[in-house]
Parts: sequence; structure tokens; C-alpha cells
Amino acid sequence: MTTSVRDEVLTKGKRAKAAAARLGIMTRAQKDAILLAMADALEAASARVLEANGRDVAEARKRATSAAPIDRLMLNEKRVAEMADGLRVVAALTDPVGEVIGGWRLPIGIEISKVRVPLGVIGIIYESRPNVTVDAAGLCLKAGNAVILRGGSDAINSNIELVRILTEAGGRAGLPDGGIEIIETTDREAAAQLMRLTEYVDVLIPRGGGGLIRRVKEESTVPVIETGEGNCHVYVDASADLDWAEAITVNAKCQRPGVCNAAETLLVHREVAAEFLPRIGEKLIAQGVELRGCEETRRYLPQAKPATEEDWATEFLALILAIKVVGSIEEAIAHINRYGTMHSEAIITRDLANARRFTHEVDAAAVYVNASTRFTDGGQFGMGAEIGISTQKLHARGPMGLPELTSYKYIITGEGQVRA
Amino acid sequence: MTTSVRDEVLTKGKRAKAAAARLGIMTRAQKDAILLAMADALEAASARVLEANGRDVAEARKRATSAAPIDRLMLNEKRVAEMADGLRVVAALTDPVGEVIGGWRLPIGIEISKVRVPLGVIGIIYESRPNVTVDAAGLCLKAGNAVILRGGSDAINSNIELVRILTEAGGRAGLPDGGIEIIETTDREAAAQLMRLTEYVDVLIPRGGGGLIRRVKEESTVPVIETGEGNCHVYVDASADLDWAEAITVNAKCQRPGVCNAAETLLVHREVAAEFLPRIGEKLIAQGVELRGCEETRRYLPQAKPATEEDWATEFLALILAIKVVGSIEEAIAHINRYGTMHSEAIITRDLANARRFTHEVDAAAVYVNASTRFTDGGQFGMGAEIGISTQKLHARGPMGLPELTSYKYIITGEGQVRA
Repeated sequence: MTTSVRDEVLTKGKRAKAAAARLGIMTRAQKDAILLAMADALEAASARVLEANGRDVAEARKRATSAAPIDRLMLNEKRVAEMADGLRVVAALTDPVGEVIGGWRLPIGIEISKVRVPLGVIGIIYESRPNVTVDAAGLCLKAGNAVILRGGSDAINSNIELVRILTEAGGRAGLPDGGIEIIETTDREAAAQLMRLTEYVDVLIPRGGGGLIRRVKEESTVPVIETGEGNCHVYVDASADLDWAEAITVNAKCQRPGVCNAAETLLVHREVAAEFLPRIGEKLIAQGVELRGCEETRRYLPQAKPATEEDWATEFLALILAIKVVGSIEEAIAHINRYGTMHSEAIITRDLANARRFTHEVDAAAVYVNASTRFTDGGQFGMGAEIGISTQKLHARGPMGLPELTSYKYIITGEGQVRA
Repeated sequence: MTTSVRDEVLTKGKRAKAAAARLGIMTRAQKDAILLAMADALEAASARVLEANGRDVAEARKRATSAAPIDRLMLNEKRVAEMADGLRVVAALTDPVGEVIGGWRLPIGIEISKVRVPLGVIGIIYESRPNVTVDAAGLCLKAGNAVILRGGSDAINSNIELVRILTEAGGRAGLPDGGIEIIETTDREAAAQLMRLTEYVDVLIPRGGGGLIRRVKEESTVPVIETGEGNCHVYVDASADLDWAEAITVNAKCQRPGVCNAAETLLVHREVAAEFLPRIGEKLIAQGVELRGCEETRRYLPQAKPATEEDWATEFLALILAIKVVGSIEEAIAHINRYGTMHSEAIITRDLANARRFTHEVDAAAVYVNASTRFTDGGQFGMGAEIGISTQKLHARGPMGLPELTSYKYIITGEGQVRA
């Protein structure tokens, strides 16, 4: 590793840790004042953001093979205003820090209280969307954490300019030096260094595709919260209301196919396959969905291509749906637990025993009965905002809002008690 | 890696994952029946345990340089009975699984409930104490988890025999195959393999010395909960009640010096150093404590050896205490946040502002005002039992009882709702 990269990451890690100690004891009023100052500054400096973003977009156009990455990267006045509004929404949320989440008195008179505290320093490793820069900074700050941002090289000019605006305005409003840091070196060395900065970073949250998340999980010695990979299923039970099944399948697949809570595989009970498959097939094809079915599916739905083993395991993030006919709820649950990513799974049923069984036995962050998987989202859940959707079981599961960006400590008060 | 090691660990990982799916939906009555059957069997088969343990002890005696490791390893009738009683205590604890820890209704009528579920498969990597085998198996089982045990080579015969007894009796009472697995290969390869078994293991909890914990943290791609390392401090403030300060310092250092919540460094405010240091020095020396002081300490306590930089960072786990005079509470807090391991930290003070400041600014799992650090313990906290004391901020902090061995899932019920 080159000295300059190591120096940058280490220096920023140290600064962030020092800032975290100060942020952790700030009042809500102080943090909200910083957030609102940052929001106003961002809107006022929109032209600076768009100029930097224009440089990123011009670079990306030279390399681009499709329009999608450009769309993710490109900002305009409206998108900048939305980022600023996002900070105002976070300012309006309750401060999780200081919440007493438990407390009791020991027989010898010592009092224990369990109090929410910030995690400390949070590292965010993400890909090309520059809005993550502002969202993550706002959420981490509100929960009393310092943040180290490590965005993709595509958006580096946008990200650096955004952080410059946030820290200039934030600094004037009381944000400590190091409260929001961005790693400016975009090569892999810098990310690798951040992933091993256990002395200064308390947790890493990767946001992006499966490849990024697996790499962070593999390389990081800093604790990681895995987010976002969603190979989600809709299972249509023998007793399903087929109108609900149709509406939910179409919604889960088509309403926004590029996101993690969209459905990727439809499982249909054999007893309703002959009725449901032709009906849902027609609706999905009308929406432009490519269907890939098991052999039995293709009997009722000859328009479907043959599904491969790989299809069952793939998060398409596109208008593609794998379809499989199953003989029982057991088979559906086993398929989901084998191929799913513990994100969002739905059963459509009128049978209470099957609903209970599915919710008990499917191992996922969010298990749905008769509703669309698309609801797995911090905003939809009423959390106000989210930093991502955890697909692991440690620390936090599902949408992560402000409380999920905290830890706790025990505060124990006595009058000279010692242990016998 | 040899094929046989890989096969053993992989096979046991798969079996544990299959067992976890069954354990996760067991009722409390079923799990308690298994725990009680295991307790009875353990007592009944005491002779088998002692025979296997005798072989371990004989091996250890050949290599031993001191009595301490033999003492940790050796079992007798009473210790076996205590293990069995430990299982009965766990059976009597409330089942954490199924607890509804939150719930609300969305504006569109969907109902969300947040329900405690097991973590899944827990790997425990530990050193020579065979009682960990039974404790960990009991706690993991009660929280609905499968467990993969990887104990030290010193106790391998004892551990294998204990697991044999538990699984024989447990199996007859309904424990699924794979619910309690032990890795019989004692070389590093087996541990290394377990640390990378991300497909089958949800979390690893290392229990043992700092070296073991650092190695697991460094090598594991499975999420880890760091436990146990405790470089704990007692800070005697200028306003301290010196009787309390004396009692707490002696208790925190001497009551059981070999454990993680014992104090390793005493910080004394300059204003009380001349009065307190000679007084506490006398008491500690009478208890056989070796003192290592800063220059200023040695002015009042010439019996102390000079402390080195390394002493401030050392968890002695012995009758050794480092002592430093500080000029202010700020200096005490800065010292603790620099050298501490985020375990247990105490202030002795009569000043409310200083008590508040210390509890807010010291970054540790348990922060004490006027009580001994020795209370950081699941049993003392009233948790009934603990699997270890977390010194990280992710997932769980401080003593980890049954709820800390769980995750949660969201169960969402609707009537055909889709996202607009």
C-alpha cells in the first residue's frame, strides 16, 4: 500500500473517532441545527454541486454502455433539493440517543439503566449514487455518529463537493472536525485500508450490489452489516385469493423492478397452477416481463422460457421473473430458505395454519401474509428514513432507521457496593 | 487444508443449519424437557465425564508449568453437578423466542409486528474450561439456536464425552440431530474452516484470552461478537468518599483478579492523592498486590514499581495494579477511552456533575458510579445466565443473556395491499 493512501485513511479515521466522542454527547438541538444548516447550504450551493456532477457525468459518458448508470449518477436542481429535504426530514425525527431502553434495581440496591448511545464511527462503502453521501451523513449525524464515506469513483467529484458543502456549513453550526469524512482516493487500496481500521471504525455498512457486499464481508475485519441483496419470493398457496395473488405478484415484480424488495421468483401451488398461471402470465407479459418457468409452469404458460438452476438463485433487478410450481407449502418454504437472501418473502393464502407456518418457518427479515414485498422500506415502515435494509441477523434486521445506528451502555449507580 | 477436516466442519455446519430450522420453531416446553433430560443424564453419567477428564488432566500434567491451567481443566463430582444445575437454571428462564418486541399498523391497514427469533447457528470457539461446553449448549438451545462447539485441545476428551452425553439424552427428549455439534479435530485448520462457514453459521462467539479473540476477529468472515477482554479502571475523583473508594478498589482488584471485570488500573485525582494513595497502597499490599505507579504515584507510594506505557494497556488478570495520578476528570476520561477495552469503568465521586460527565463520556459497556466493576456479569445483573460479555458495540454490549442470543423478524399481514 502506498504511504499516501494509508495516511489519508488513517488520518481520517483518527479525526472521525475524535469527532465521534464530541458528537456522542451533543444535544438534539445542536444536531438538528447542524442538519438544517447543511440543508440550506446544499440548496444555496446547488450550482457548485451540479458543476462537479457535470464533470462526473462527462467522464461516465465516455465509458458508458447504457443509460442506467448515467441516470443513477446524474443530479439536477430537483435532486439536490430532495437531498436537502432529506436532511430536514432527519432533523424532524426523534433523537434515539439517550433513550432509556431498560432499567432495574439489584437486590443490594444498585440501580442499572440501559441507555441508547451512538455506535461511534460508521464507515459507508457505496457505489455511484451521490444522494447516499448526503443521506448517510445526515442519518449518522442525527444518531450521534461520525461517518467515513467511501463512494464509487464514478461520483467522486460530486461526493467531494457535497461533503465540502456539508462540512463548511455544518462546521459553522457546530459540527466537529472529522464528523463527516470522505475518502478521496478511489482505488481499492483505500477501501481495503478502511475495512481494516478496527481501532477507529466501529461498523461498516456496504450499500450497493451483491459483489460489493460480498467483498466487504470477505475482506473486512471491522464488523459489517450486510444490506440490500434481495432474492424475494411470492408464494401463491392452494387457498389463495387469486385476485390478491395477481395484484401482489404484479406489484412485487413490476412496480419498481430494480430494487431489492422486488420479487424475483413466483412459487405457485399445484392446485391453483392451471387457473392462476395463464392469468398471471398474461398480466406480466403485458407489463413486459420475461418469464422463466419450471417444466410444469411451461405446460400452463408456454410463453415462459425454461428456468435454469441459476435462475432460482438470481436477483434479476429487472423485468424477469422465475416461476416454479410446488406441491406443498413445505416445498415452497424449503425453496425460499434455500435460495432466498433473508430479505422479504410473501405468502398469499386464506388458510390461517399456512399463514402461521409460513411466518414461523421462513427465515427472512420481513415475512408477508397477503401483502406485497415492496413494503420492506424504512419510509413505508414509518421509520422516517433508512440507511439500508439488513439481510443479516446480527444487530439489526430489515430496514435500519436511526435506532439501528445506535448501541447501548449500562449505567450503574451505587453507594459504595462491592461484590461479595 | 486436508479433506477430512473440511468434511468434518462442513458436514457439522450443514447438520447444525438443518437442526436450527427445527429448533427455531420448538415450544418452550419442548426445549425445557430437553434441557432437564440433559441435566439428569449429566449427573447420572458423572463417572464417564470424570474418566474422560482424567485423560485430559494426565496429558496436561505432562506439559504443565503451573497449576492454574490444570485447575481450569479439572472436573470433579461437584463441578459436574454444577454444570447440570446450570442447565436446570436455563430451563427455568423465560423463553426469549416469540416475544413481540414492537408492532404497529400502517396507514393503509397493514399490520407489522416485530418478533424475536433465534439467531440460527452459533459457533463458540473457546479455550480449556469444559464447563463452557455445557453452559453454551444450554443457553444456545434455550434461545432456539443450534450450536457448533470448538473447544481447546486440552479439554478435547472431556468435551467430546460431555457432548455425547448431552446429545444422547437430548436426542431421546427431542433434540434434533445436529442441534449440538462439536468439532473433534483440534488443529487450527478446523477453527479456520469454522470461521469461514458463512453459509451455515450466523455468528461466532469467541470465549477466552485476548489472543484468541483477536485471531477470530482477524480471520473470521462469519460475524463475530467480541467478548471478554477487560482492561478496567477505577477513577477516584477529587470529591470521592475515600471509604467507598478504598472498598471498591480492593474489591475490583482482589475479589477475583483473574476475571475480565477486575480492575487493572487505578486513577487518582491529584487533590486526594496524598491522602488516598498511602492508605490504599497499604491495603493492597496486605492483599499481596504488586503496584506499578506513575512518577507522581511513587512519591506517595514508594513501594510501587515504575509503571511502563505497556502497563496502562495491559489486562493483568493477576494481583497487579497500575496506578496513575491525574489532574482532572478530563484526563481520567481520556486515559480510559485511550487504554480501556470498553468493558467496565468506575468513578468514585460525590459530585453529581462529574458522575454525569463520566457516564456520558466514558465509552464502555458498563459505566459505574460508586460501585465495583465486578458487578458486570449476567448473573449479577439478574439475567439468570450469560454466554459472555460483549466488548463491541454491534448487536449486544455487556453481559449477554438469552435475548442477546436472538435476532428478530418483521411479520406483516395485509389483505391484498400493494405499494402505490
